[in-house]
Amino acid sequence: MVEKIYVTYNDVHKLCQEAAPKILADFKPNLMIAIGGGGYVPARILRSFLKQPGSPNIPIQAIGLSLYEKLDNSTDNAVEAPGTKVTRTQWLDFTALGAMENFVGKRVLIVDEVDDTRTTLEYAVKELQKDVELARERLGSDKKTEFGIFVLHDEPAIQNKDKPKKGTLPEDIINGRYLAARTVGDEWICYPWEATDIDEHDRMAAEAKAKKGL
Amino acid sequence: MVEKIYVTYNDVHKLCQEAAPKILADFKPNLMIAIGGGGYVPARILRSFLKQPGSPNIPIQAIGLSLYEKLDNSTDNAVEAPGTKVTRTQWLDFTALGAMENFVGKRVLIVDEVDDTRTTLEYAVKELQKDVELARERLGSDKKTEFGIFVLHDEPAIQNKDKPKKGTLPEDIINGRYLAARTVGDEWICYPWEATDIDEHDRMAAEAKAKKGL
Repeated sequence: MVEKIYVTYNDVHKLCQEAAPKILADFKPNLMIAIGGGGYVPARILRSFLKQPGSPNIPIQAIGLSLYEKLDNSTDNAVEAPGTKVTRTQWLDFTALGAMENFVGKRVLIVDEVDDTRTTLEYAVKELQKDVELARERLGSDKKTEFGIFVLHDEPAIQNKDKPKKGTLPEDIINGRYLAARTVGDEWICYPWEATDIDEHDRMAAEAKAKKGL
Repeated sequence: MVEKIYVTYNDVHKLCQEAAPKILADFKPNLMIAIGGGGYVPARILRSFLKQPGSPNIPIQAIGLSLYEKLDNSTDNAVEAPGTKVTRTQWLDFTALGAMENFVGKRVLIVDEVDDTRTTLEYAVKELQKDVELARERLGSDKKTEFGIFVLHDEPAIQNKDKPKKGTLPEDIINGRYLAARTVGDEWICYPWEATDIDEHDRMAAEAKAKKGL
């Protein structure tokens, strides 16, 4: 049975708080792109901690990506089979002049909750790089856009060779502009926004922390 | 001095959980539009509770609106003066055929954290209605789109006649498709994603709850 990790909202908050100084020191993003829905909560929290006194908030743009949801109705409890095909439910506007200038030559931090199969992140980076490059050409600019990534949890799945990452990321991102607040094993991460009983969820999280403390 | 209300993440979670059955019974949204950044967290949580067994998640589209931030640097602690001019930082794609069909004839729930001056909500509803109407005409459809609103907190400010709502909403939304999880007075609402010390924030919230219980 796959072990579960219960992550509380306050855990998420503190992971963002902890990561913010590193992100400001190493990457200094001009803009965040939240991958919805999982990236919404960390992106919004991170925005608070990236804010510099006297400067406006770092803007967040949202994109919607979902792995093709195949519903398995063969049992009473329909479960979602993990998919591999990414579909866009929302994308960015790269056509208006102002919109292009938001991205071209900027440092853009892509935010999601978990890097598990890496399929969604690979898609996001590739497609964003492509569209930003087109925008750069249209603007006649020679300024490069740098993408960085922040996730709450990376699951490299090194403990389970049957589940390597399906997606890949550019070397320069992985080796310098990739930050996972925590690296975990092959556990199933339970995020608080999916909890049907948040008090019970918090109890499970506290129990696991107490066990670890022993 | 304005009283502060400390809202914890679990409070937000439970407000969304409590509202979901009403939203499903009364409005049955096909789509949510989260007003960023404040609408991101409630929209993501609400999605979990609006999910029906055997059906896919209700998609979330994000828009970015911000009241013009005027930075007051006249003191050491720069504070943001509340603005009245709404600027778009992200908008929706109404041009592609599929994108238009996402909205035309659908029930669209607009989600934000707070309805204070109502300026942002008025802007969102007016502009969305305008764009959806254009999309409807282009599609040659006679299907009307219905907009609803969900906010965590409404601040009608009835206790303070100096601060009436600046924005207005259509009567049919206010009288049937508007849901605020809580209605509060003229207090300053402290949302958890703005807390620099989340444990202290939770302590203040617990203290206020204990006082109320006396």
